[in-house]
Amino acid sequence: MASLKVPASVPPPHEDAEQLHKAFEDAVLAANILFFIRSSGWGTNEGLIISILAHRNAAQRNLIRQVYTEAHGQDLLKDLDKELSSDFERAVLLWTLDPSERDAYLANEATKRLTSSNWVLMEIACTRSSHDLFKVRQAYHARYKKSLEEDVAYHTTGDFRKLLVPLVSAFRYEGEEVNTMLAKSEAKILHEKISDKAYSDEEIIRILTTRSKAQLNATLNHYNNAFGNSINKNLKEDADNDFLKLLRATIKCLTYPEKYFEKLLRLSIKKLGTDEWALTRVVTTRAEVDMERIKEEYHRRNSVTLDRDIAGDTSGDYERMLLALIGHGDA
Amino acid sequence: MASLKVPASVPPPHEDAEQLHKAFEDAVLAANILFFIRSSGWGTNEGLIISILAHRNAAQRNLIRQVYTEAHGQDLLKDLDKELSSDFERAVLLWTLDPSERDAYLANEATKRLTSSNWVLMEIACTRSSHDLFKVRQAYHARYKKSLEEDVAYHTTGDFRKLLVPLVSAFRYEGEEVNTMLAKSEAKILHEKISDKAYSDEEIIRILTTRSKAQLNATLNHYNNAFGNSINKNLKEDADNDFLKLLRATIKCLTYPEKYFEKLLRLSIKKLGTDEWALTRVVTTRAEVDMERIKEEYHRRNSVTLDRDIAGDTSGDYERMLLALIGHGDA
Repeated sequence: MASLKVPASVPPPHEDAEQLHKAFEDAVLAANILFFIRSSGWGTNEGLIISILAHRNAAQRNLIRQVYTEAHGQDLLKDLDKELSSDFERAVLLWTLDPSERDAYLANEATKRLTSSNWVLMEIACTRSSHDLFKVRQAYHARYKKSLEEDVAYHTTGDFRKLLVPLVSAFRYEGEEVNTMLAKSEAKILHEKISDKAYSDEEIIRILTTRSKAQLNATLNHYNNAFGNSINKNLKEDADNDFLKLLRATIKCLTYPEKYFEKLLRLSIKKLGTDEWALTRVVTTRAEVDMERIKEEYHRRNSVTLDRDIAGDTSGDYERMLLALIGHGDA
Repeated sequence: MASLKVPASVPPPHEDAEQLHKAFEDAVLAANILFFIRSSGWGTNEGLIISILAHRNAAQRNLIRQVYTEAHGQDLLKDLDKELSSDFERAVLLWTLDPSERDAYLANEATKRLTSSNWVLMEIACTRSSHDLFKVRQAYHARYKKSLEEDVAYHTTGDFRKLLVPLVSAFRYEGEEVNTMLAKSEAKILHEKISDKAYSDEEIIRILTTRSKAQLNATLNHYNNAFGNSINKNLKEDADNDFLKLLRATIKCLTYPEKYFEKLLRLSIKKLGTDEWALTRVVTTRAEVDMERIKEEYHRRNSVTLDRDIAGDTSGDYERMLLALIGHGDA
């Protein structure tokens, strides 16, 4: 369930576009008068921007962008980029993008960074529906003039490449049909390979990257029943490394996405110095999808609400934007 | 260019559907009177079937199927299956299917057979457009309740799996943009790996399975310029095996599909005992795409037209069906 709150009566897109433009105009006017004052976003009406954009769904935001471009000959995103700054800017820009464009952007960024970028690719590949993942691949073509899998394959090596390329290329079947015989035989294969510490064995990769989520779930349930431990428990028993961590996260994303996101939020808030990139990513990509479930999970696991933790760890317009997206207060 | 000939004035689909139904009715009537005569297709009006179906494009055939089902409560394909037999039946059934359904059917069949089935998978993955390949994957979901890549991964092993799974999962960029630096550096990588006889090295697989056809073409041209031989010549110098053959065919499909199909037709016709499966597959899958180019190539390479060779090697309704599809005679 989405956390996004859209008001009962939404103004027509041209009105929203005008309001946003006005929010920038104030800034231009102010900048003209006091051009030597360079305080971040000075004069721009951030509150107005949040009150509009954080309360419009993807289709509505797309319309606003379209109308804005028609009226002002400029992409709304470009103007937002010019007027805003730092974490607040990133949150507003990511949120305003169409979901498949946003994922394409995040994935492209991930292929260029080192730190934890593999997680972003895995997360996009495993938590989106098959059709939505395909739309990300189409958006990637349109925006970067190459394919997502081509960039992922080029920028990764070894076991990470072996896992990530088929993950981002997958078009999993999404029906609920389960083949019990297959679930049993593949649970056995997984257990054998893990017992042999062959964590990047091609059979493990094949099963995790091609089977439907329903089938995989059945396989992992059989694993648990037959061998007395969850697969992730067994994957944790041995020496730990980055590949094993990614493998466990992959399994979690495919079977319990809300738990995966809860943990990501927890770690990004609790660590010394908030990880704003992860926080912004999770909030902007899940607000329209399953943020209510994630909030529930967060509350259960941390005995404090996500709203409260975000309010305690962030501030200013960035805080207001995130809280609006996770459904705090009224639309 | 397509070889399919559609008449200038096409009857409305319900008329076509009625004619087809009548072609079967004659058979039922005849069978009732002379039920002990079991000659193949006796009584069915094969000429009528060819004259209609072999001269309708995919959209028209789909409409005929739809109208036929509405009028007779039965899928036209089921009735064709009942009334026809052997090679003629297979040609009519494959042709009548929608292109993406047909490819899904051929691919599924390939995952279950051993002989040369890898070629069918590679051929579908490499000669269809990115969008058409994706439509095949959608049709595969709908028909088989699983994903194409899942079946391919499950039914292949070793080097074949390493090559085929990313091939069928690819969504290549289709623009004409070429990165010359990249072409040079990847030509070098390919040459190094081939010199080391590391034919199934993951870098070779990565380049062949993810780069756009335009980029790959530039890379292989650089290969030829820099190292004095075409890549396929270098891949042929060493001991030959099935994987190397498939690798060369992959490269040919990606860069010169019409030459690949010409050779496939040549071998299927010239070998002792025609390979009807390959012949039927090439004719039914290319008639609406690039059969004219393939015929040109065939004529140039064999000094005889494809029409003549097909007429010399096949007979009866099967011959008539193939010749109609490759554009022999009038619509």
